[in-house]
Amino acid sequence: MTAQLDDLAIELPSWAFGNSGTRFKVFGTPGTPRTVEEKIADAATVHRFTGMAPTVALHIPWDRVDDYAALGAFAAEHGVALGTINSNTFQDDDYKFGSLTHVDKTVRQKAIDHHLACIDIMNQTGSRDLKIWLADGTNYPGQGDIRGRQDRLAESLAAIYQHVGDDQRMVLEYKFFEPAMYMTDVPDWGTSFVQVSALGERAKVCLDTGHHAPGTNIEFIVAQLLRLGKLGSFDFNSRFYADDDLIVGAADPFQLFRIMFEVIRGGGLEGRGERSDGEGGAGSDLALMLDQCHNVEAKIPGQIRSVLNVAEMTARALLVDTDALAAAQEAGDVLGANGILMDAFYTDVRPAVARWRTDRGLPADPMRAFAESGYQDAVSAERVGGTQSSWGA
Amino acid sequence: MTAQLDDLAIELPSWAFGNSGTRFKVFGTPGTPRTVEEKIADAATVHRFTGMAPTVALHIPWDRVDDYAALGAFAAEHGVALGTINSNTFQDDDYKFGSLTHVDKTVRQKAIDHHLACIDIMNQTGSRDLKIWLADGTNYPGQGDIRGRQDRLAESLAAIYQHVGDDQRMVLEYKFFEPAMYMTDVPDWGTSFVQVSALGERAKVCLDTGHHAPGTNIEFIVAQLLRLGKLGSFDFNSRFYADDDLIVGAADPFQLFRIMFEVIRGGGLEGRGERSDGEGGAGSDLALMLDQCHNVEAKIPGQIRSVLNVAEMTARALLVDTDALAAAQEAGDVLGANGILMDAFYTDVRPAVARWRTDRGLPADPMRAFAESGYQDAVSAERVGGTQSSWGA
Amino acid sequence: MTAQLDDLAIELPSWAFGNSGTRFKVFGTPGTPRTVEEKIADAATVHRFTGMAPTVALHIPWDRVDDYAALGAFAAEHGVALGTINSNTFQDDDYKFGSLTHVDKTVRQKAIDHHLACIDIMNQTGSRDLKIWLADGTNYPGQGDIRGRQDRLAESLAAIYQHVGDDQRMVLEYKFFEPAMYMTDVPDWGTSFVQVSALGERAKVCLDTGHHAPGTNIEFIVAQLLRLGKLGSFDFNSRFYADDDLIVGAADPFQLFRIMFEVIRGGGLEGRGERSDGEGGAGSDLALMLDQCHNVEAKIPGQIRSVLNVAEMTARALLVDTDALAAAQEAGDVLGANGILMDAFYTDVRPAVARWRTDRGLPADPMRAFAESGYQDAVSAERVGGTQSSWGA
Amino acid sequence: MTAQLDDLAIELPSWAFGNSGTRFKVFGTPGTPRTVEEKIADAATVHRFTGMAPTVALHIPWDRVDDYAALGAFAAEHGVALGTINSNTFQDDDYKFGSLTHVDKTVRQKAIDHHLACIDIMNQTGSRDLKIWLADGTNYPGQGDIRGRQDRLAESLAAIYQHVGDDQRMVLEYKFFEPAMYMTDVPDWGTSFVQVSALGERAKVCLDTGHHAPGTNIEFIVAQLLRLGKLGSFDFNSRFYADDDLIVGAADPFQLFRIMFEVIRGGGLEGRGERSDGEGGAGSDLALMLDQCHNVEAKIPGQIRSVLNVAEMTARALLVDTDALAAAQEAGDVLGANGILMDAFYTDVRPAVARWRTDRGLPADPMRAFAESGYQDAVSAERVGGTQSSWGA
Repeated sequence: MTAQLDDLAIELPSWAFGNSGTRFKVFGTPGTPRTVEEKIADAATVHRFTGMAPTVALHIPWDRVDDYAALGAFAAEHGVALGTINSNTFQDDDYKFGSLTHVDKTVRQKAIDHHLACIDIMNQTGSRDLKIWLADGTNYPGQGDIRGRQDRLAESLAAIYQHVGDDQRMVLEYKFFEPAMYMTDVPDWGTSFVQVSALGERAKVCLDTGHHAPGTNIEFIVAQLLRLGKLGSFDFNSRFYADDDLIVGAADPFQLFRIMFEVIRGGGLEGRGERSDGEGGAGSDLALMLDQCHNVEAKIPGQIRSVLNVAEMTARALLVDTDALAAAQEAGDVLGANGILMDAFYTDVRPAVARWRTDRGLPADPMRAFAESGYQDAVSAERVGGTQSSWGA
Repeated sequence: MTAQLDDLAIELPSWAFGNSGTRFKVFGTPGTPRTVEEKIADAATVHRFTGMAPTVALHIPWDRVDDYAALGAFAAEHGVALGTINSNTFQDDDYKFGSLTHVDKTVRQKAIDHHLACIDIMNQTGSRDLKIWLADGTNYPGQGDIRGRQDRLAESLAAIYQHVGDDQRMVLEYKFFEPAMYMTDVPDWGTSFVQVSALGERAKVCLDTGHHAPGTNIEFIVAQLLRLGKLGSFDFNSRFYADDDLIVGAADPFQLFRIMFEVIRGGGLEGRGERSDGEGGAGSDLALMLDQCHNVEAKIPGQIRSVLNVAEMTARALLVDTDALAAAQEAGDVLGANGILMDAFYTDVRPAVARWRTDRGLPADPMRAFAESGYQDAVSAERVGGTQSSWGA
Repeated sequence: MTAQLDDLAIELPSWAFGNSGTRFKVFGTPGTPRTVEEKIADAATVHRFTGMAPTVALHIPWDRVDDYAALGAFAAEHGVALGTINSNTFQDDDYKFGSLTHVDKTVRQKAIDHHLACIDIMNQTGSRDLKIWLADGTNYPGQGDIRGRQDRLAESLAAIYQHVGDDQRMVLEYKFFEPAMYMTDVPDWGTSFVQVSALGERAKVCLDTGHHAPGTNIEFIVAQLLRLGKLGSFDFNSRFYADDDLIVGAADPFQLFRIMFEVIRGGGLEGRGERSDGEGGAGSDLALMLDQCHNVEAKIPGQIRSVLNVAEMTARALLVDTDALAAAQEAGDVLGANGILMDAFYTDVRPAVARWRTDRGLPADPMRAFAESGYQDAVSAERVGGTQSSWGA
Repeated sequence: MTAQLDDLAIELPSWAFGNSGTRFKVFGTPGTPRTVEEKIADAATVHRFTGMAPTVALHIPWDRVDDYAALGAFAAEHGVALGTINSNTFQDDDYKFGSLTHVDKTVRQKAIDHHLACIDIMNQTGSRDLKIWLADGTNYPGQGDIRGRQDRLAESLAAIYQHVGDDQRMVLEYKFFEPAMYMTDVPDWGTSFVQVSALGERAKVCLDTGHHAPGTNIEFIVAQLLRLGKLGSFDFNSRFYADDDLIVGAADPFQLFRIMFEVIRGGGLEGRGERSDGEGGAGSDLALMLDQCHNVEAKIPGQIRSVLNVAEMTARALLVDTDALAAAQEAGDVLGANGILMDAFYTDVRPAVARWRTDRGLPADPMRAFAESGYQDAVSAERVGGTQSSWGA
C-alpha cells in the first residue's frame, strides 16, 4: 500500500501561510510571512517534514514579484517548485458586478488581460495550471441576466484559453455560493464541465471540497468527472456548514476517505506527472491542492496536519480489498460490501505511513518534529515589522 | 400579457388523482379513482375548469390497459389527450439493487425491455415523450461501484434511445436523493445532461423542481439548460425540505416566479407545439408537467390550484419590463433592477387571468366553480367498491 | 477503557426486524418475522452475539399481544427483556390532521387514551419509558394554527403525564420534518425541552440522530440536554440527507464518535441502570436505543453491525486523554486539542472490543459468527407463510 | 388594515449605512458616512421618507462617542431616537477563543465589563435594549469543551444581567454558524431560551431571520417564543444560503409574510411601546430591527426598501381573514385554509400602504422620492476625505 504513497504530491497554497479570517475579524499571529519568499520558505518547511508537498501554488496579485525566475530559483533552493497560478478578479473595485461575466466589455477585457498576465507568469515559472475561481454572481434576483452572463463567461474563457500553452491547462473552479448570495455564475460541476468542455482538452474542472450544497455526494462528482476525463484538480479543505475552509479531513474524515477511494478507482493516482490517455480518464494529471484558511490555528502545523490527513486517508483507501468488494457488490451483499470499505477505513494506518516517512529519512511524527524544530520561534523572532501577508496582499 | 397565456399547456399526471402518502401512511379519500379511465376523467375535469391542462401523463404499469387506442379515444371524448409516458423500474423486486444500472445484465435487460414496452405504448397513444426517472442508487458506501453503475447507465440508455422515434423524445429526470439514501445514479442536472448529451438531439433533461439540494438556485439551472438546448421538461411541485411533492408554488411562490421568468427569457414559452430552432434554445418543445402528491388535501382542487399557480406566476413573469430591466442591469443599478422584477411579482394578476378565462368561456374562479359543480360529490357517490388507485396500482 | 463498555446497553427496536422501505417500495426478504415473538427472537439473537443489546423496544399497536406477561416471559427465556413502549398515532385515519394537537377534542382524547393504554402495557411489561413521537404537523401554510396546536399539545401531554408512574418516564421525540412537509409540531430540541419541562422531572427529551436540519451540530444538543438534566434517550441511526434511518455510524462515524464523547463527558454512561443525582446531570438513566430501517440490507446483521458501531465509537471516545485535552483547551492549542481527539478516533479499537467479547464468552467477530451460525437459513426455512411484519402490522 | 401600520416601528442599525462586505472584499461607495452622526443623519433620512423607522441602533465600540447626551440630542434634531445598544466582543484579539465563554477568567471579565459599559451607555441614551450577539465558538472538534463553555456563558450572562435596569432588557441572539465553523455557543433558539430563562423576566431571545439551518421553519419559532413570552426582538434580513444579510423580504417574501402573520397572531404588534401582560405573550414590547449588509446595493435606498418590505408584508398579513381561516382549519379544509392565507399574500397592498403614507404627509413612493431628493448627491459631494465607516470602525 505505502509504495503508492510515492505518487502523492500535494500542492500547498502560498496564502495558507498568510493571515485569513472571516468578515468579522482577521487575527494576526507572530511569525506570519510578510513576503512571498517567506511564504515559500514556510511551504518548503511543510515539505521538509512530510515529503509530500513538493510544490507551492501562487496567487496573483498577492504573490506578484518582479522576477519569477528568481522566485523559482528561491523555491528550488528551499526544495520545492512553483505550481499552479491562481488568478484573482475579486478584489478590484471594477469587479463589483462581475469580471469575466461583466456587462461592460472593458471590464471583461481587463479580467481577460489579468488572466493573460497570469499565463505569462506561468511561462516564466514553468507552472502547468492556471486556476480560475470567479467571485462573479449577483446578490439579488434581477440584478443580472443569468443567461447573458453565462454567454459572456463562455466568450471570455475562450479568449483566455487560446493563450493556454500546449503543456499548460486551465482549470475552472465552481462554488455553490459566496461571495455572491443569490446567483453564482459557476455554481456547480455541471456548469464548470459545460464551460470547459466547450474549450478543449486542456480545460478541466477544479473541485473544491467545500463548494457544494449541504448533503452533496462529492465522491460521486469525483467519479463522474474522472469518468469524463475532466477532473483537473482538487482544492482540498473541509466544512461543517458553508465554505468553512477548515483543514481537509477535519470535519468528516470518512468523506475524505471515500473521495480518495474514488480518486484511486478512477485512475487519479496512477503515474502522476506523466499524461495518461487510457480509458481511466484524466487520472494521471490530476492535481491535489490544499485551499484552506487557518483562522484560529497555527498555520504551518495546520498545513502539515492537512498533508498527513490526505496521506493517511489515501493509505486507508488503498487498503480496500477491491476484488472482495467487487464480489460483494455483484452478490448484492450490502453489509458485506460496506464492511469491506469500513474495514479499510477503521484500520489504523498511521504506523505504516510513519514508516514510509522514516524509510525516506523523514520524521516519524511530523507534527511533533516541527514543534520541536524551533522553526516557529525562529520565524516569530525574525519576522518583525512589515505587513503580514493576508488575502489583501 | 394574457395573450401569451395561450401558450401555456400544463400536463397533469394521472397518479396525482390516486392516493399517495409517506412511508408512514397513505390516507384514502372518497371518490378516488379506481381505474385509469376515472383518473383521466378527473384530469379532464381540471382542464374543463382551467382551460390550461390539455394532456394527461400516464405511468406504466400503473396505467396499463389492453387497448391504448381506446384509452386515447376515451380521453379525447373527455376533451384531453394522452401525454408523456412515465416508466417505472422501482416497484419490482428485481430492481432492489438497481435497474438500468444493475450489475446483472438480465435485470438491466428487463429494465430496458420495460422502456421498449413504454415506447410501444407511445406509438399507440401518440405520446411524444418517454420520461425516465430512476430510483437507482445505493444506501451504503461501498454497496455499489459508482463509476461502473454510471457506465452501465449509459449503455442501457443507449439501448433504449435507439428505439425512440424521430418524433419522440426521451427525457431523463435527476433527483438529489430518495429512495436511495447514500448515492443516487442520476443525482443532478450535470449527470442527466452528460448522459442525454451522449445519446443525441432527442434526449433531454427533465427538471423536477423538488429534486435539488437545499438552497439550490433552480432558475439558474433552467437558464443553463435552455441555453444548452437541453431542457426537455419540468416536473412541477414544491418543497420545504426534501422531495415534498407539494402543490407547485405553495412553498415559495417567488421561486416559481423566477423559474417562469427564466423559462420565458430562454424562449421556453414561444410557439409551443411546434419546434423552434432559434437561438433561444429548445424552448418551444419544453413540456410543463405537474408531479405532485396530494396526501392530505383534496386531489382535483389540488391540481386546479396548481394549474392556477403556474398560470398566475407566468402572468406575473410576463409583466416584467424587460427593457427597463436590461437597462438597470447595464447601469449596475442593483435595487432598480431588483425593483423591476419585484414590481411584476407584487402585481395582483388574478383579475387579468380570470378575464383570460371568462373570455374563453371558462369560470372566473375555477376553485369555486369546481366546488359548486357537484363533481366531487358525484364521484364520491359513484366510485364505491373496487380498489382506489395509488402508487402501487 | 473496555471495562466501561460494561455500562453499554443498547436497546433494539422490534420493528427493525420487520420489513421497511420508502414511499416507493417495501422489499420483503426471506425469514422476516411474522409475529412479535419472532421479532424478539431475532433481537435476542443480536444480544447473544454482541452481549450489549439486552432489551427490546415494542411499538403499539404493531406489537400488541393479549398477554404481555407471557411476552415478557418469552423474552426472558430468550435472554432479553422488554423495554421502551413506543406509541403510534400516525396510522389511523382519524389522525390525518393531527393527534395530540388535533383541533377536535374527540380525536385528541383518542390519542391520549392510546397513550394511557401504552402506560397500561408498561405496567404489565415493567417497561420504564413511554416514548412519544408524533407525526403531527401540517403540509401547507395556513392549514393549522401553529400556536393553538402547541397549546393543545401541552394540554394533551399533561393529561398523559399524570398517568406516568413514579418509576416510569415519558420521553418526547422531536423531528425536523416528515411526514409533515411544512410545519411539524415538535420540530426541534427546544420545543421538546419546553414541553417536557412544563410537565415535570420524569418527562425528558428523546434525541433521534436523524431528526435534524442539515449541518446541525448534534453533539452540542447532547451536551446541552445532559447539562439541563433533560436528555432521556437516543434513537440512534444515521443519515446523509433526511431521516434516512441508516445504520448508526454508517454515514458519519466521526459524528457518532463526537456524540459518544459528549455522552461520556456529560455523565451519560455512568452507573447505568441506577439513578444518579450528581452534577453530571441525567446521565445514568439515559437510554440508548436504535431506530433504523434495514430497507436493502439484511436485518439481523444490520442490527449487529449497529450495536458494534456504537460500541466501537464508545470505545474510541473512552480513549480520549481528557486531562491532556483540557490542558490543550486551556492553552488555546487548537491543533493540539483537536489532535488529542483525533488520536482516539483514529485508533483501531476493534481488537480491544473483540477481547471484551471473548472475555465474556462472546464471539470475537459477531458478524462472521452470525453468518456462520445458520440462524438466517433456519428462520428463512421456518418462517414461511403468514404475513411478514412491517410498519403496518 | 392600514390603521395597524401605525404600530409598526422598525429600528435601523447604524452600521447598515457604513460599508460592509464579505471576507473577500469590502467595496466602498461615495457618500458613505465617516462618523456616527452621519450614520444617524442617513437613518433619519430613511425615517423621513418612510415614517416607520423612528429609532437607530448603535454598535459599541463602532459608534462610541464622548457625549451620548449630545448624540441623543443630535438624533432628536434629526427626528429619530437612539435605540438598542449592540455589544461587540468579536474584534479584539483577546476574544480569539471566546469572550463570555472564554476559559480565561480575565478575558471573560473583560467581556463582561464591556457589556457593563454598554449598559452605562444605555443609561445615558435612554436605550431600552442591550443586544448580545456572540461570535463565540470553535472551529475544530476538541478545540473547546462544549459543556464548560455553556456553563461559563450562563455565569457571565448572570453577571451582566444583574446590572440591567428595571426598564431595560437584555436580548440574546442565536446564530447557526459563522464566524465559528464547528460549534457555536448560542447556535439555536433553544439555547438562547434556556440561557435567558435562567436570568429572569427582562432577558429575552433575539431572532435574526438569517441565523438558522437550511429549511428551518422560522415562523414556528416566532409562534413558540411569543407563546413563551420570550421573543424580545427581531433582526430582520434575508438569505438564500447562509447569513447572507440581504434586504429583508428579498429572498423569500412569502416567508416574511408568514413571519409577520405569526407576529400578529401572537400579539407582537399590539399596543407597541407599552407593556402588555395579556395571554398573548410578550407581544407589545417586541422590537423589530433590521440587521443587513448592503454590500453591492445603495445603502440608504436599501434601508428604505427594507422598511417598505416589512410594512407591505405586515399589511398583507393583516389582510388575512382570521375567522374564515379558523373555520377552515377546524373543518380540515386544507386548500381552503391555505387559500385564505394566499389570498392575502397575493393581494397588492402597495396602493393602500402608499395611502397610509400620503395621509401622513409622507411620499407615496419613498424609493423614487429619495432618488429625486438629491440627498445622495449631496452627501457624496460633502463626505469627502476621512475614513468611511465600516464594521471595523
